[in-house]
Amino acid sequence: MDGVKKYPVPTIRRLPLYLRVIREMAEKGRTAVSATDIANALNFDSIKVRKDLAYTQVTGKPRVGYQIQELINGIRAIIGWDRNAPAVLIGAGNLGSALMGFPGFAKRGLNFVAAFDNNPAKVGQEIHGRKVYALTDLERYIEDNHIEVAVLTIPAFAAQEVADRLAKCGIRGIWNFSQLKLKVPAGMVVQNENLVSGLAVFMVRLATGCSEE
Amino acid sequence: MDGVKKYPVPTIRRLPLYLRVIREMAEKGRTAVSATDIANALNFDSIKVRKDLAYTQVTGKPRVGYQIQELINGIRAIIGWDRNAPAVLIGAGNLGSALMGFPGFAKRGLNFVAAFDNNPAKVGQEIHGRKVYALTDLERYIEDNHIEVAVLTIPAFAAQEVADRLAKCGIRGIWNFSQLKLKVPAGMVVQNENLVSGLAVFMVRLATGCSEE
Repeated sequence: MDGVKKYPVPTIRRLPLYLRVIREMAEKGRTAVSATDIANALNFDSIKVRKDLAYTQVTGKPRVGYQIQELINGIRAIIGWDRNAPAVLIGAGNLGSALMGFPGFAKRGLNFVAAFDNNPAKVGQEIHGRKVYALTDLERYIEDNHIEVAVLTIPAFAAQEVADRLAKCGIRGIWNFSQLKLKVPAGMVVQNENLVSGLAVFMVRLATGCSEE
Repeated sequence: MDGVKKYPVPTIRRLPLYLRVIREMAEKGRTAVSATDIANALNFDSIKVRKDLAYTQVTGKPRVGYQIQELINGIRAIIGWDRNAPAVLIGAGNLGSALMGFPGFAKRGLNFVAAFDNNPAKVGQEIHGRKVYALTDLERYIEDNHIEVAVLTIPAFAAQEVADRLAKCGIRGIWNFSQLKLKVPAGMVVQNENLVSGLAVFMVRLATGCSEE
């Protein structure tokens, strides 16, 4: 693909944190910021911050730092916060409902437009302003509305079947909260988010007194 | 600390997935399972599964595999699913409420007993059966009830102050969903779970067509 650049995943994960900090500074009227300022605000190492920010191609000036608005634009461009990806939620349970209710996702380019569930009691209801449709309507809705992104919050046993259906109707990416590693066609993006795995690491670290991640 | 063992974090993250798969097999009446069976069920590499399972110290037999109940016990012992850590939730918003409503956490050793919020409209209410207390009651509750674990679902700007208070009243571990790297005393465990960082990686992978994680 033309214009594809490679960014290290740990860098991508830190960029939203930098963005939050420099926005807070901008709101206080500052117009310039150094890597050290950002590092101090986040308890990070300033050399790592400087390396990460180099990917934005925004250049700082000695003793002045980066121009804040340039840096905000540079980070937003990398992490896609300027996009507006309409997304469907599949599985309108507790976790799914919470994700739809978090206003931060829309600000960051992920825009929930509808939810799907196989529970008849939920179908036809609205959750945080989005209508819940029957899972049988999934393909039709996705094709009619040119949806490319799905967020999967259903139990593991049902996840692969839904993923197969999503792959067939043009979905390009799945943010997968189910506890299953999905098989998908080449080129389809699956981003796994596994809270139970995170809890396991937390519990082991608590038991062993290991304070490092 | 005596008896501390080191487990690789990627191994710990995979163990809950193995546990789910072999439990499903046990429910169907199976009593033995091989690493290859587990690998096939999860689209994993069987050599990796075998290495991970070696940490349980359960030994499989050639052509038979592992005795399922032994393996379940061995995995549960590592990842702490047999513990019962009473936990407080701090920040009873959408995400916090969803976490409390997920029955899977209690089954996995994390037992929410109360929530705290600074919104007077929420204080005194119940969310998924747990009472919401005022944030001013935090220290008293934690000390009276010998709580050692806190789950933090508050905005970044408030997170460090709360973490400082938690450190002073005996909390040993924080599962941190706020977007801030917390400064805590040596020995205190902070496990970060950052959904916004996960979204950033997802958006970059979508934009660049990078299907590998």
